[in-house]
Amino acid sequence: MKNNYISPFKPKKFIRFKPNFFKIYTFNAGFKKNKKDLLVICFEKPVYCSCVFTKSFTPAAPIIWAKNNNKNLCKILIVNSGNANAFTGKKGIKNIDDYVKFTSNYFGCKTDQIFVSSTGVIGEQINTNLILDKIRLINNSKTGNILDAAKAIMTTDTFPKISKEDIIIQNKRYKIYGIAKGSGMISPNMGTMLAYIFMDLPLNKNEIKQLLSKNIDDTFNSITVDGDTSTNDTVMLFSQKNEKKINITNKLRTQLNEKIKKVMSSLAKQIVLDGEGITKMIEVNVLNAKTKKQAKNIAFSIANSLLVKTAIHGKDANWGRVVMAIGKTEEKIVQEKIVLRFGNLIVAKNGMMNKKINLKNLDKYMKQRKIVINVELNIGTKKHTVFSSDLSNKYIEINADYRS
Amino acid sequence: MKNNYISPFKPKKFIRFKPNFFKIYTFNAGFKKNKKDLLVICFEKPVYCSCVFTKSFTPAAPIIWAKNNNKNLCKILIVNSGNANAFTGKKGIKNIDDYVKFTSNYFGCKTDQIFVSSTGVIGEQINTNLILDKIRLINNSKTGNILDAAKAIMTTDTFPKISKEDIIIQNKRYKIYGIAKGSGMISPNMGTMLAYIFMDLPLNKNEIKQLLSKNIDDTFNSITVDGDTSTNDTVMLFSQKNEKKINITNKLRTQLNEKIKKVMSSLAKQIVLDGEGITKMIEVNVLNAKTKKQAKNIAFSIANSLLVKTAIHGKDANWGRVVMAIGKTEEKIVQEKIVLRFGNLIVAKNGMMNKKINLKNLDKYMKQRKIVINVELNIGTKKHTVFSSDLSNKYIEINADYRS
Repeated sequence: MKNNYISPFKPKKFIRFKPNFFKIYTFNAGFKKNKKDLLVICFEKPVYCSCVFTKSFTPAAPIIWAKNNNKNLCKILIVNSGNANAFTGKKGIKNIDDYVKFTSNYFGCKTDQIFVSSTGVIGEQINTNLILDKIRLINNSKTGNILDAAKAIMTTDTFPKISKEDIIIQNKRYKIYGIAKGSGMISPNMGTMLAYIFMDLPLNKNEIKQLLSKNIDDTFNSITVDGDTSTNDTVMLFSQKNEKKINITNKLRTQLNEKIKKVMSSLAKQIVLDGEGITKMIEVNVLNAKTKKQAKNIAFSIANSLLVKTAIHGKDANWGRVVMAIGKTEEKIVQEKIVLRFGNLIVAKNGMMNKKINLKNLDKYMKQRKIVINVELNIGTKKHTVFSSDLSNKYIEINADYRS
Repeated sequence: MKNNYISPFKPKKFIRFKPNFFKIYTFNAGFKKNKKDLLVICFEKPVYCSCVFTKSFTPAAPIIWAKNNNKNLCKILIVNSGNANAFTGKKGIKNIDDYVKFTSNYFGCKTDQIFVSSTGVIGEQINTNLILDKIRLINNSKTGNILDAAKAIMTTDTFPKISKEDIIIQNKRYKIYGIAKGSGMISPNMGTMLAYIFMDLPLNKNEIKQLLSKNIDDTFNSITVDGDTSTNDTVMLFSQKNEKKINITNKLRTQLNEKIKKVMSSLAKQIVLDGEGITKMIEVNVLNAKTKKQAKNIAFSIANSLLVKTAIHGKDANWGRVVMAIGKTEEKIVQEKIVLRFGNLIVAKNGMMNKKINLKNLDKYMKQRKIVINVELNIGTKKHTVFSSDLSNKYIEINADYRS
């Protein structure tokens, strides 16, 4: 893995602030060399938490553990990077039991209120002492800010990922913010996309569950770097638990939904923008499809196609490859009805190339850093958008030369 | 596209012979510069032909034309390389009508007995004059051999693909042989896998249909280079039509089936061995699956995974990525039952890494040119094998720098 590679999309500035309803602790536990690799979040009081996990049938130990142990309330969140605790068998589960038990004694809370995630190398047992040694320091440690948290969960990421939105409810300002990591659906051996989103407003557990599940498909489930799905993928949404619940009107629910979607969408896009070896971002919009599923299938087929990704990388408006990627889904479409645009420029329609295309403008467009592929199927009213990265030599280097 | 790249798997010798029931003509028609790009095969008498086409919903004009016009009998086969006649609308179909009509007049046969294929650039109209100009020369042209035929249909292929088997029936020797092209499920813009298989023994049309359909799944449908499916993929099987049919016993049918499978399998593997930018061949065997479909899904998920392909390219026995690729199919498997081998070396079992593995042997194994990944699921009795290539910088170069 080359350490000198940095995504060209790395932001110039990062926000940093300390949350008002939990404390952040970060450590170099020793999973990685000289880098923060352990994040512990301590909520002042237990908060509601809703989770979405990878659909993989080879899930990592933290996923199995969470499904068997966690309920809706969370007091402590422990995330380590550098070891994924994946494909580690019963011993992997037992290790989580151990460090969760220690943590529950240390903080005096129930074990089911401790949530855990891991990301990193697959197949190696986790050294629990590395975690215990830091947990026992927490009462005497300084608290960190949200940027510290985002940095501590990074693996092959080249920049920390943070997003924040404000919402004013009954004259009070609330914050919705989150952190994420991942530079591929799975990064090289260093598994995983992780995202944690926090709301300092009190909602009931059903509300947050709905807010999460409603938006996951259009955000975290609509990005791809290499089409590979991690064994550890996790998204968690936390909301302050409070006796004084906010009365959620329909109008407020819509507003809240928009804000949460913004945060989730921003984090998801940042993951693509840090996609391994990225030089260009690709947005694929499939419009006027018969069903949402069809739109999504076709959008992913285009966004995952190696030939499309390499063409975009080479600044080549190779629309024939997009047609191929549409066709290979075996979705029932009508070739002659497709209108295919790169940005606003129509490249193909009526089942053939658009002869009137201004090639100079097209070449200019292909040099941009963000390429939008618009596919109008014109057989229905449904649509879907997927974000992807191009495929460069850097991706091969990062993933083939991993051990060197 | 770099012209200096040659697959390391290119054979040292090629067989060449002239068929006994058809004549081969090859030309440089002008679709490509200074290279043969037109193959015309003239059968002495009409022969039976069975076809399998791409399942793509954006099929090329020759596929649409064949489905609407061809029946079981073939007198002339015309294949051009350099232009795929794909996504060319009604004009693309009309162009085929034109050169087929001319050819039928020239040879005095029915238009439905003329079979056509195209491979090459997508989206450009074919210049039919290039074909007509050569067809009218045929009666005064020299015939070629099977190697000439294999060469004339190449696009980004770095070597011609031929396979041949003999079979002795009732003391008479018959030949089964074929040619193919393709260096990816689709090659860069130059679409397509094409294969033509010939038998000089007389079978009835149902027999050849069955022989083809029975073997297509385990041969041409079990290879992948980039997971992309062409708009033009075509496999055709021809068998001499003769009044004196051979009496096909069950024993002979089995024997014939084996021989045909050998020819098809050899051609399919040669396509992988010429996969764009290949440095290593990957064989993925999924064993003891619940269903054939499950075995195939998992085998393709591994064979198509960019992370698996880049790891093999980097000589890295990164079995965690194989586990990820198994899991992401969402096939119902049991993690703990999987036994994962690289060659004969067990790398993981009981849901975790095999600690007893001899790493020195494993490293040595990973340096080989052919890597076999064996996945025992141990939940059933079904199996499937897929052949794939690794993913190298050369693939990116070939496909990103296509226009330069």
